[in-house]
Amino acid sequence: MSERVSWVAGAEGSGFGIQHLPYGVFRVGDGEPRIGVRIADVVLDLAAAEDAGLVLAGGALRRPTLNTFLALGRPQWTAVRQRITELLTDPAHRVAVEPLLVPLEQVRMELPIEVADYVDFYSSEQHASNVGQIFRPGQPALLPNWKHLPIGYHGRAGTVVVSGTPVVRPQGQRPSKDGPVFGPSVRLDIEAEVGFVVGVPSPLGARVAAADFDEHVFGVVLVNDWSARDIQAWEYQPLGPFLGKSFATSIAAWVTPLDALRSAYVAAPEQDPSVLEYLRDEPHVGLDLRLTVQWNGETVSEPPFAGMYWTPAQQLAHLTVNGASLRTGDLYASGTVSGDRRDQVGSFLELTWGGAEPVTVGGAERTFLLDGDTVTITATAPGPDGSTITLAEVTGMIAPAR
Amino acid sequence: MSERVSWVAGAEGSGFGIQHLPYGVFRVGDGEPRIGVRIADVVLDLAAAEDAGLVLAGGALRRPTLNTFLALGRPQWTAVRQRITELLTDPAHRVAVEPLLVPLEQVRMELPIEVADYVDFYSSEQHASNVGQIFRPGQPALLPNWKHLPIGYHGRAGTVVVSGTPVVRPQGQRPSKDGPVFGPSVRLDIEAEVGFVVGVPSPLGARVAAADFDEHVFGVVLVNDWSARDIQAWEYQPLGPFLGKSFATSIAAWVTPLDALRSAYVAAPEQDPSVLEYLRDEPHVGLDLRLTVQWNGETVSEPPFAGMYWTPAQQLAHLTVNGASLRTGDLYASGTVSGDRRDQVGSFLELTWGGAEPVTVGGAERTFLLDGDTVTITATAPGPDGSTITLAEVTGMIAPAR
Repeated sequence: MSERVSWVAGAEGSGFGIQHLPYGVFRVGDGEPRIGVRIADVVLDLAAAEDAGLVLAGGALRRPTLNTFLALGRPQWTAVRQRITELLTDPAHRVAVEPLLVPLEQVRMELPIEVADYVDFYSSEQHASNVGQIFRPGQPALLPNWKHLPIGYHGRAGTVVVSGTPVVRPQGQRPSKDGPVFGPSVRLDIEAEVGFVVGVPSPLGARVAAADFDEHVFGVVLVNDWSARDIQAWEYQPLGPFLGKSFATSIAAWVTPLDALRSAYVAAPEQDPSVLEYLRDEPHVGLDLRLTVQWNGETVSEPPFAGMYWTPAQQLAHLTVNGASLRTGDLYASGTVSGDRRDQVGSFLELTWGGAEPVTVGGAERTFLLDGDTVTITATAPGPDGSTITLAEVTGMIAPAR
Repeated sequence: MSERVSWVAGAEGSGFGIQHLPYGVFRVGDGEPRIGVRIADVVLDLAAAEDAGLVLAGGALRRPTLNTFLALGRPQWTAVRQRITELLTDPAHRVAVEPLLVPLEQVRMELPIEVADYVDFYSSEQHASNVGQIFRPGQPALLPNWKHLPIGYHGRAGTVVVSGTPVVRPQGQRPSKDGPVFGPSVRLDIEAEVGFVVGVPSPLGARVAAADFDEHVFGVVLVNDWSARDIQAWEYQPLGPFLGKSFATSIAAWVTPLDALRSAYVAAPEQDPSVLEYLRDEPHVGLDLRLTVQWNGETVSEPPFAGMYWTPAQQLAHLTVNGASLRTGDLYASGTVSGDRRDQVGSFLELTWGGAEPVTVGGAERTFLLDGDTVTITATAPGPDGSTITLAEVTGMIAPAR
């Protein structure tokens, strides 16, 4: 594909240039939610574009969420992307398209998808190993199953919220010497993750092969899986995390299509022991997404997604190997992204080693989140034509417990 | 309330008499899904009744699932139930209503609700204690948190299926001496449970008090949370059950309104140690539902729901105490219902003590489920006016792995 240049001001050199084109759902004022695609600092109103016959998707772009479009499948995803690329590069379209561009500062973003089921994996070896050392000192850092299957669990789909939504500090039970006490969490944390959005469903009782990843998965969003470590530590045995996680999971407002990330694929870490056949993916690749975690505007960590032990295709194959069906709008996240170094971890649990080793933020010693704190996760990736893609941020501010 | 008598043949003395009136979604032939209410062995077509102006619910009865009706709230639930009772008891309505009755044998039942989030609790002390003894021999049967909070986790909403749907034996990893092996589960089990269907949603960041149970919860369905014990045992640490459960959860086709169960409330077991304030429910009551588990038509167990340690109102208060919102269509299940005796347990894991003590079914020694096996769970409850309510069965047959 030759390099393409958009006529939209500011697109060239932007992380949201013509090579990116993520999809989202926006409102202007009190208007209805509309599907748009972002380029530079404007949104192309795709509902209006479909109304005007500039792009054709059978009405799927005139819906309040992306789900109908996501269900269409890869041939249509590619065709629509190609058409949008034409509209935004060919100067002949400028007169018709320019009136459909809305400045970002005029829009309010909504949750881009209606989330069906939400699954959270645990796919960073460094993260699982750090958590093991912090929570189970003196025992092997990784449990025996960890290198044989991508550990995961279901989260609460109904509390997945769009970036920017305030996160109310959860209340709950936490352990103390005198038994459990009730109150606002005092160990409120983040988990910097990468989420995968399923478009094409699969029938109950059938498996989806790792090789069919591209057929089912539409794209990627950054995820912050907020976690109350004190609530979680008390409740999680034997059935796993529940209220320590279910109060909120934030996702970015813009879904980056896999088609924008073709230049970001890199070899995934070699797996030893070798995995069972249904988990073999060929090529065995991950995505070279470079995350940044900002705490009140200060960068505290840069987690590297390329090093994740389990790949997104392996996660999909595992999720469905028992015959579980996929639905349009299913979201599965990678689990916390952590690299080898302390400044590459995706949680404050690890950054401060369970709270024992505070970090300096805003001139103060800090461990977990205080009311009023804001955490913003961003990422970049190699894009086509030597460009750089900037994944849309996921941000949230902590509101006091109610 | 005085005793009411229906003019419908067979209603008198039926577990599906005028005191019950559960809601479901049915099809006739290739027709669209329609909402109906069951009495005796017929279905009153409520879509047709609303079309005819016989019952008014703002169109909520003319939808393909119960969700819109469930969202209306208790005053409307009660009004519609009163109106249906009038229609089915007052002989003056018989001429108009009788043509809207469809024999059960002519209908195919669909999933009655669009499930939003599915949560599974673990609220039987006997079950938790049995599982603890089987899986963690030599350790305390109950973990330290168990009597302080209703342990629960999220299941897969997208694989909740209606009673009668075949259950394909799941494949997956199970442990062996030489590391994990792949194949069909060889320890496929049931979990006999009672599910609660949420009608009225709640906002994110707010708590729902135990006292508001009646305002949010519409009714009850029997649940079979099929479980692959071998897959579960290998995968569940540290994040809980995942593929061992997510392949299928069956629910009854008919949702029994709480209004039909007013005579079934009984004092719940005393809780010691006392629970934190947000978990105190007044009155502290459970439901006297008497379950029966049939394995290929033979009764193998009769689990008593009245003895559950945690009540449905406590589960609701716990589920939302961290600010998690409720959505219409949320389903939360009790966890396996097990009583004190071996013939009162809600899983074959317990019935056969981990497979070590087979039972005789159909003249053969049996432990876990074989292909072709059918499990049917039913229940009765004291109804109004001295009647007995029969909760609709949840049944399923095991199909071979694919």
